[in-house]
Amino acid sequence: MNKSIGIIGAGIAGLHLALYLQKHGIEATVITDRDPEDVASGRLMNTVAHHSVTIARENALGVNHWDDPDLIYHHHDHFFNMPDGPLLFRGAFKKPSRAVDYRLYLPALMRDFTDRGGRIEYRTIQENDVAGIVSRFDLLVVSTGKGPLGRLFQHRPEHTPYSQPQRLLCVGLWDGVDHGAPGQADPRGVTLSVSPGHGEMIVIPTLTHDGMKTALLMENVPGGDMADLVSLNHDADPAAFRQTILDKLEKHHTHTYNRIDTHRFGVAGQQDVLQGAVVPTVRQSSASFDDDKCVIALGDVHSVVDPMMGQGANIASYAAFVLGQAIVESTVFDARFCEVVDQRREDRVLAASRWTNLMLQPPSEAMGRLIFSMSQNRELCDEFTENFNHPERTWDNLASEKRIHAWIDSHMAQQAA
Amino acid sequence: MNKSIGIIGAGIAGLHLALYLQKHGIEATVITDRDPEDVASGRLMNTVAHHSVTIARENALGVNHWDDPDLIYHHHDHFFNMPDGPLLFRGAFKKPSRAVDYRLYLPALMRDFTDRGGRIEYRTIQENDVAGIVSRFDLLVVSTGKGPLGRLFQHRPEHTPYSQPQRLLCVGLWDGVDHGAPGQADPRGVTLSVSPGHGEMIVIPTLTHDGMKTALLMENVPGGDMADLVSLNHDADPAAFRQTILDKLEKHHTHTYNRIDTHRFGVAGQQDVLQGAVVPTVRQSSASFDDDKCVIALGDVHSVVDPMMGQGANIASYAAFVLGQAIVESTVFDARFCEVVDQRREDRVLAASRWTNLMLQPPSEAMGRLIFSMSQNRELCDEFTENFNHPERTWDNLASEKRIHAWIDSHMAQQAA
Repeated sequence: MNKSIGIIGAGIAGLHLALYLQKHGIEATVITDRDPEDVASGRLMNTVAHHSVTIARENALGVNHWDDPDLIYHHHDHFFNMPDGPLLFRGAFKKPSRAVDYRLYLPALMRDFTDRGGRIEYRTIQENDVAGIVSRFDLLVVSTGKGPLGRLFQHRPEHTPYSQPQRLLCVGLWDGVDHGAPGQADPRGVTLSVSPGHGEMIVIPTLTHDGMKTALLMENVPGGDMADLVSLNHDADPAAFRQTILDKLEKHHTHTYNRIDTHRFGVAGQQDVLQGAVVPTVRQSSASFDDDKCVIALGDVHSVVDPMMGQGANIASYAAFVLGQAIVESTVFDARFCEVVDQRREDRVLAASRWTNLMLQPPSEAMGRLIFSMSQNRELCDEFTENFNHPERTWDNLASEKRIHAWIDSHMAQQAA
Repeated sequence: MNKSIGIIGAGIAGLHLALYLQKHGIEATVITDRDPEDVASGRLMNTVAHHSVTIARENALGVNHWDDPDLIYHHHDHFFNMPDGPLLFRGAFKKPSRAVDYRLYLPALMRDFTDRGGRIEYRTIQENDVAGIVSRFDLLVVSTGKGPLGRLFQHRPEHTPYSQPQRLLCVGLWDGVDHGAPGQADPRGVTLSVSPGHGEMIVIPTLTHDGMKTALLMENVPGGDMADLVSLNHDADPAAFRQTILDKLEKHHTHTYNRIDTHRFGVAGQQDVLQGAVVPTVRQSSASFDDDKCVIALGDVHSVVDPMMGQGANIASYAAFVLGQAIVESTVFDARFCEVVDQRREDRVLAASRWTNLMLQPPSEAMGRLIFSMSQNRELCDEFTENFNHPERTWDNLASEKRIHAWIDSHMAQQAA
């Protein structure tokens, strides 16, 4: 049976699905409004790390163009700027992670797809295009929230506790921040830095058009000391912007501040600052049309998470593979098809959302114990770190106060034994 | 960690779970109001066939006391009493099925459990016992709808299309009905007999206290010619009861009527008739108590299906193993635990319900084509038969008109090739 699959959107979800289907001999058409040059020359889109489960999918697709020991990192350093003195501890991955600027990453995958014979249509979609696009394909996959197709999927309030962003983001690529170096005494790593009550900062060594830079993903609490960074205008006064960031880092994220070469410190390029906020939102995963035809949501349009735990791209890629496999197996793309896809992907997708949402809240007594215990028990912290690959396992460990204590206790018992 | 599991009810669900936990060294207490002698000497409870997936679970538990080639059967004969002439065709299982009267089966498993050191408490539960029983165990499993615990689980109207029974049941164990014999030219089998507009009859060779008898599970359509059998009083006039059944079989279920030795035909024993009806109902699978403790539903209290497709006991046993495995793996029994159990069991449990409900409705055009196609294509009918073990696969094949046609077409293409 010939199957014709339409994919709206060319982010990681849409492209990983398109490449997966192409590999399995299924005709997929990608529709997007931005060509590779637009993406490559545009503003910073996000700061994304791919964990080893995602890198394994890239290898399966033959699109891991960044299989370079100079790019990868193996651990998370956790820094807590506590009133009674800083807390610093490390957790390791079993296999390395890696971050590549999506202005490099996405155009490369678009070219892979078209070089192998794939079709990408560059166009915008209007309200009155919807029916035609739905009827054109056996199955339409929507992997972008933009446009009328993104609005097909209803909110699921039972999974969407927030109507407001929980963090105000100030994201940039910077020169002059030491993030370790591969093979050195201080190997390359990501830092998860917390200033209680004010926010978090994720420090990510990232490959860009201009080589390795450091992404500072600042997640600031509304009403906290760094909330205003979300609207601080870089272009109006780059020097003032730089100095303000430096002052805030000195006060709140000391561990990272101490690794800054102030002579070199500055935003890497004109378009390398991104400010804004995300309302964590889970949506219905499909919508039905006449004739038992369904349109299925993939990636952010299904569940958008705050970027703090680095889950969005990784679960989007995961869900793309789940969907791709189901498409390969199926001949009928109806409501039952969408149900089966959801059964397979929902636990991980929801776990990423729930875990991230939990981390956005002030820590409970049990979470406080977990943080302290991780600082004392390397295996506990390694498991926490490795499970960035497996958010459903993290949710098994964190879903209730009882579970957090039981998880800590099981590691403490091992340590004592 | 010591885990203490309470199980309310001693049907197949509760007993398979209790025996599974016992095998894995976990303390389980069964609470029921009927001891083995009560069950053994009581009225016919149901007419249940265990398919090979369930027999495999019995083997795993070491409770297959009926591993006897004289008891098993290998096929379904389908008979349709069509106005323009009867339709008769056969579908085979890959591995045999078998039916044992639950008045033999359940007491044997109760004795297995207690002989191995298990505890069964015989008592009824009142409203004011509930809190104490919940707090007594780490997890309470409710596998009977009787009593106040059975009322904890709310209806799920999205899965419960009916407020009335779809069939009126008249069930009995009979002498004098030939159901084939093992090793003979006409081997032992089950017959699924349909009288369009009036109802179905499932003919099941069944082991009882008095040897092999034939269960006639008559599923009569309200308003049809056999609807009144649900209230026909056997004990008031056994001869009239027998004659009425004989007359209806001659008119509606000719294939079976032709296999009756009228001299021997009669109800096997005083307590071997059961009349009534079932409202197919899916309920919430768990209920929460204080302190994040949950009570979980298993078996009929979770989903009760009309007995027509023989799914109730088989999915109850399946769900018992899913739950047992999750209990073995887990240390915390909270809402997340119940969610994980549901993720694992829900597809098969719902599929059994949906498939059965579909078969209770007048056949669509696609279902009509399926029946005719099965009569012409042995492999198609064999797959339908084997999938009594895998109701989720049947639902994949029957969930929409498109799917039914696609399934038939795939077999027709194979046949033509």
